[in-house]
Amino acid sequence: MRPNYPSGKDLLSADAVSRFDLDDIIARAERHLHEEELEKAGLPLPEQPPAPRRRPKVIATLFDQRSTRTRLGFQTAAARLGHQSIDAYDTDRSRMGTDTGESIEDHIHTVELYSDVLIVRSHMEDMPYRVGRLSYLPVINAGNGADEHPTQALVDIFAIRQMRGAIENLSIALSSDSRARFAISFVKMLRLSPPKRFTLCCLPDTPLNPAMREAMTVLADLGTQVGLVHDIRHTLDHDVLSIQMQDMSKFAHASLGNEAVDKEKESEPFTLTARKVLDARSDTLILNPLPRFSELDTSCDSLPNAGYFRQVQLSVPMRMAILERMLLGIPWTGQVEDFRPSSGG
Amino acid sequence: MRPNYPSGKDLLSADAVSRFDLDDIIARAERHLHEEELEKAGLPLPEQPPAPRRRPKVIATLFDQRSTRTRLGFQTAAARLGHQSIDAYDTDRSRMGTDTGESIEDHIHTVELYSDVLIVRSHMEDMPYRVGRLSYLPVINAGNGADEHPTQALVDIFAIRQMRGAIENLSIALSSDSRARFAISFVKMLRLSPPKRFTLCCLPDTPLNPAMREAMTVLADLGTQVGLVHDIRHTLDHDVLSIQMQDMSKFAHASLGNEAVDKEKESEPFTLTARKVLDARSDTLILNPLPRFSELDTSCDSLPNAGYFRQVQLSVPMRMAILERMLLGIPWTGQVEDFRPSSGG
Amino acid sequence: MRPNYPSGKDLLSADAVSRFDLDDIIARAERHLHEEELEKAGLPLPEQPPAPRRRPKVIATLFDQRSTRTRLGFQTAAARLGHQSIDAYDTDRSRMGTDTGESIEDHIHTVELYSDVLIVRSHMEDMPYRVGRLSYLPVINAGNGADEHPTQALVDIFAIRQMRGAIENLSIALSSDSRARFAISFVKMLRLSPPKRFTLCCLPDTPLNPAMREAMTVLADLGTQVGLVHDIRHTLDHDVLSIQMQDMSKFAHASLGNEAVDKEKESEPFTLTARKVLDARSDTLILNPLPRFSELDTSCDSLPNAGYFRQVQLSVPMRMAILERMLLGIPWTGQVEDFRPSSGG
Repeated sequence: MRPNYPSGKDLLSADAVSRFDLDDIIARAERHLHEEELEKAGLPLPEQPPAPRRRPKVIATLFDQRSTRTRLGFQTAAARLGHQSIDAYDTDRSRMGTDTGESIEDHIHTVELYSDVLIVRSHMEDMPYRVGRLSYLPVINAGNGADEHPTQALVDIFAIRQMRGAIENLSIALSSDSRARFAISFVKMLRLSPPKRFTLCCLPDTPLNPAMREAMTVLADLGTQVGLVHDIRHTLDHDVLSIQMQDMSKFAHASLGNEAVDKEKESEPFTLTARKVLDARSDTLILNPLPRFSELDTSCDSLPNAGYFRQVQLSVPMRMAILERMLLGIPWTGQVEDFRPSSGG
Repeated sequence: MRPNYPSGKDLLSADAVSRFDLDDIIARAERHLHEEELEKAGLPLPEQPPAPRRRPKVIATLFDQRSTRTRLGFQTAAARLGHQSIDAYDTDRSRMGTDTGESIEDHIHTVELYSDVLIVRSHMEDMPYRVGRLSYLPVINAGNGADEHPTQALVDIFAIRQMRGAIENLSIALSSDSRARFAISFVKMLRLSPPKRFTLCCLPDTPLNPAMREAMTVLADLGTQVGLVHDIRHTLDHDVLSIQMQDMSKFAHASLGNEAVDKEKESEPFTLTARKVLDARSDTLILNPLPRFSELDTSCDSLPNAGYFRQVQLSVPMRMAILERMLLGIPWTGQVEDFRPSSGG
Repeated sequence: MRPNYPSGKDLLSADAVSRFDLDDIIARAERHLHEEELEKAGLPLPEQPPAPRRRPKVIATLFDQRSTRTRLGFQTAAARLGHQSIDAYDTDRSRMGTDTGESIEDHIHTVELYSDVLIVRSHMEDMPYRVGRLSYLPVINAGNGADEHPTQALVDIFAIRQMRGAIENLSIALSSDSRARFAISFVKMLRLSPPKRFTLCCLPDTPLNPAMREAMTVLADLGTQVGLVHDIRHTLDHDVLSIQMQDMSKFAHASLGNEAVDKEKESEPFTLTARKVLDARSDTLILNPLPRFSELDTSCDSLPNAGYFRQVQLSVPMRMAILERMLLGIPWTGQVEDFRPSSGG
């Protein structure tokens, strides 16, 4: 189902990112974070060497799924870099891909001539890949159906490194539906700095998503101690717990307009409360991609463990780093490594 | 009902503004207006001393009530200052505060990490106060239910000073529902430079809103000659008349989507026409927050008295001044004065 | 029906543009295109002489008709120039011109005080003219009912010159409903550099739109060999073919919200396919304003004749040139020439 990966210009999957790329993107994010901290402290920013005049850049978002956070996050990152965003998919105004609207091909070939990078979120898994093949511009996958969400994975990796240090020294748990797109991207991304231990907390009676199983096998082959648990309490001895709702599939497939999703209550074993954290005397760092549902009780917010709002804050310099790198035309080199074995075998 | 005022960082009520703050904000607005006038005359702007590099700022609007003017006004003010705006409440795309959406707390804690100032308009009176308490960012109340609308009051104060000079020398009339949020903020703000005379023109059979009665009592205590009339013709001997529709309550409480508000005709005593102005040989300056309804007949537009479009023009430098001051982190000092007596009593 | 043309400040019709204006606007567009090309090649942009400080400009769009391309095109052009856009007509949020909303007069008098140029698209033919008379700001007609679309005509003229050279040496065909607003603006604009030959391809049984007939008569008077054909194959010996759907009237009159337009199939004689181009051994440059409907088969996309995506690319520097010229306050001088004969007669 996954089409051939178009080229190093796009960030469509965690596969695109090599260790080299990750180090570069984190160094860029740290620089932007440092400037934010200087500014908040009222200190002057480091002067930059005189640069040649540049035309302001234009970031185009094409989202056919609802999003507050990811859309605003990229708009903010663009604004902080001095660029502007255009909303190239507006359900009220455009008719892209509908019977009376223009074809996706024509729309992409137009929007690419107006902008410098395309950010795609879609309920259709193949949409970012289609856009990546159609356009000569760099394309970012901001979530595609039940496939991947690589920029959120980069945010989490950055958050863990900022708050707990080198991932190689850590035990990391993930409570999630194994089909969730963020979860898949996150575990794939961990291959670049395999943790000592990785534990997936998921429903006992649901088969593991094949993509998740493969990503966990890759980790095991790299020396990570990989495990499965079915109760959130069994993750509270880890250094980090990234927690999501257990049944994301309805969300992942919902498109704009037909999204009457019930906020079902998580069953008790998958709900994190302050009580559970305190009972376990746990110092596990808690991450959550937000918006949260019932999986993460607000009683956790006042715990020192709560890392999820700091995580939101760190998402801005990380998204700035991603945009900056791609606007400079620096290719992602991960795909080359990953595909060489199978194409050579 | 009014919660404890959070801190000097926010502009939620006319109470927040001291005379010192008012002088500062008007000086800033005058500087921006001066630059606008230089530019329109084709003259060079005064050079600024070399400043350290700064990251562009992000202004977040959270409006759950319809607004054209206030939203565009702040967007324009941000753009003129070189900043960008993000629309952090989009009825079509976000689900904040709904059953299936995220909580207001989580939403604010996210948006504050993306931006530098929050502008809130809500049909819920406590919303800007909630946001002000939740966030470490400066928060602007751009209208909350039937409570206040302090930035519009600052616009009117600035307009009067630009067009008629020091308010202490003037007689000022206000034709309005005494429950209108702008009206309350305006009369409260007048305490900072009490006019010689203040007259409220309102329906004869409606009890005065307590907040309005208190604000008028404050003016009377400061030496202003305070009066009530029930016919617009009895305001035409004043230096200034700020006129609004008489029944604003339906508007003030309407939220996005359920706003089938009839544009009821004002009854004749509260409708201003050119005929009435000419018959009174009046040179009263006429202000109106716009959009107008039937209270202000378009026949007035060609009178030299009409000040309401100049008022719109002056709203831009005033909103620039407000944003500039708050982005610099300068606190509002009015609250301290106002609260000292009662907390000390 | 056409009101008196307000002044040289507005670009409402192809009539506004003189040959002098056209040369200026094309020189500006070529400069912006050159900078785009330098940037794509990684070369430094030419340094600009030190300029006095300027306030960022604000571009206001007032569109009551659906548009993806024109709206995004102007937003992009504004962003590339370092300016920002505000959307001053939002069907969801504003109530301009409705029973409960404010009058168009009040709305324009407000928006003009927030911005530096107004861009109007409307299903009402007189709307841009009304706005032009109401406002002291420069106004751009981005399509008004079945009247004109002069900026698209400028894009086409620029595209032809870039891809085929001086128009005076060319034969140009236009396949279009003679009532289409772009078509009328395009043929009017051709008077500024009359081609050797001009051919309209249209339905045989439909009377020629009077405005089109007049524009073609002007071309004939200037020495162009003017003709009519009723089959697209009879245009394939021309240097250029600009092709549109034959029945645009439903689109031209559709307003936001009531636009259930069927994408009717063009009848065979008006549909261009790669087969027809190859059979004719034609090297005709094919232009299309996009979005296309059935008139232009995607089989044409891989032909060397296909110029329509390059045309989209060229639309950005042309829109930048239009905004730049009007923000500088340079008047359009075409109207003077055109109106002098009749007003002097």
